[in-house]
Amino acid sequence: MGTSRTNPQAARRAPRAAAPASPWAQAPAREAQREAKRNAVLSTAAQMFTERGFHATSLDDIAARLHVSKPTLYYYVKNKDEILLECVKKGLHMTLDGIEASRAAGGNAVDQLRACMLVYADIVTQPFGMCLIRIGDEEVPEPSRTELRRMKSEIDLAFRRLVAQGVQEGSLSACDPKMTAFVIAGALSWIGRWYQPEGEYSAAQVAEQCIATLMHGVLGAPAAPAKRSKKRAASD
Amino acid sequence: MGTSRTNPQAARRAPRAAAPASPWAQAPAREAQREAKRNAVLSTAAQMFTERGFHATSLDDIAARLHVSKPTLYYYVKNKDEILLECVKKGLHMTLDGIEASRAAGGNAVDQLRACMLVYADIVTQPFGMCLIRIGDEEVPEPSRTELRRMKSEIDLAFRRLVAQGVQEGSLSACDPKMTAFVIAGALSWIGRWYQPEGEYSAAQVAEQCIATLMHGVLGAPAAPAKRSKKRAASD
Repeated sequence: MGTSRTNPQAARRAPRAAAPASPWAQAPAREAQREAKRNAVLSTAAQMFTERGFHATSLDDIAARLHVSKPTLYYYVKNKDEILLECVKKGLHMTLDGIEASRAAGGNAVDQLRACMLVYADIVTQPFGMCLIRIGDEEVPEPSRTELRRMKSEIDLAFRRLVAQGVQEGSLSACDPKMTAFVIAGALSWIGRWYQPEGEYSAAQVAEQCIATLMHGVLGAPAAPAKRSKKRAASD
Repeated sequence: MGTSRTNPQAARRAPRAAAPASPWAQAPAREAQREAKRNAVLSTAAQMFTERGFHATSLDDIAARLHVSKPTLYYYVKNKDEILLECVKKGLHMTLDGIEASRAAGGNAVDQLRACMLVYADIVTQPFGMCLIRIGDEEVPEPSRTELRRMKSEIDLAFRRLVAQGVQEGSLSACDPKMTAFVIAGALSWIGRWYQPEGEYSAAQVAEQCIATLMHGVLGAPAAPAKRSKKRAASD
């Protein structure tokens, strides 16, 4: 046998490091890289959709901002509709996860409601959250549209349940939880329509002010007005 | 001469009623008819845009619902973009006129604010108002986009001025009028996103509930919940 001069056992035990390095990453690392790149495609797209609208943004525009060719994008996403769906879904998952965490943190219904409002207000100032708010359900083709509506209902129901619980606990006055949840969702979602990251208020200031007004009412006593003197002042 | 047997003067004085009736309307009536038909095109389009989205509605769809051919539509409108622009503009003009009337009716700042909120809540449950809310500015090409944004700013400023006036009068607590106006606009605009004319609440009930929650806050004491037992219950 050709291997008779060496010990076959020892040859099998030769350290892997001795093998010539491969220029290709191993499968799990490759998968992680692909996922990171796909996320970059999605977040760049989300930002562009909110800047100029979904229909006015082409795959070429997205590719150009990422310094890649359009065919490269197709390695990560099927088409623009898929990108939109994934962006909106990410916004929805972030919201649902945040609500879940706020509820798990405990406290009475008003504490939980306030925590959920903070989560929501924060998410709608970020690109995926802005997509969620600015893109109408009608833009998303079926069957995804039904799935998105189901997820949006879950968010709505979480707010409704907290309001109903607050009424039951006596920490909130008697009201129609459905309508109250709509008012909360409306005021907070609107932030995603007008908020400008480079504007006069930080995201934290917007959230604080809006939640105070929602909690105490226009006739009530919201927190003292505060504008930031420089971009992204420390969260207050 | 052939006319020698009749008196030429008398012939010229023959009453107009004797002339054969024209199947064409006179110019002012024709213009009024054209305007009425153009309005029918716009309101049908507004309804379809809010039902299925702007991009999913074709001129063929609009023509079919009006029982006319697409070439007939072109007699009233240039293209789909023009229809959208006109629909949004109608929603804006309705709102600005309503705000103007509410302010002209007088009262203190809170009375005027409440009247303006009622106007706004009512308009966003109607097709042109729903278009205004559901269609993003990005969908409208320049230079119309800038014009629409200017009109939207006027509405925003009217709310801000009333809030500031209320703070000055002492009828509202100290607040940042800009942020308070955003909360009001957000909660009321949201109605235009979810309101269904055939749903469980009448437009008047929705307006009343939302305004009460905005005025008194989630922690406050909004009006007792009320749902209608049948479609479009008497305004309450």
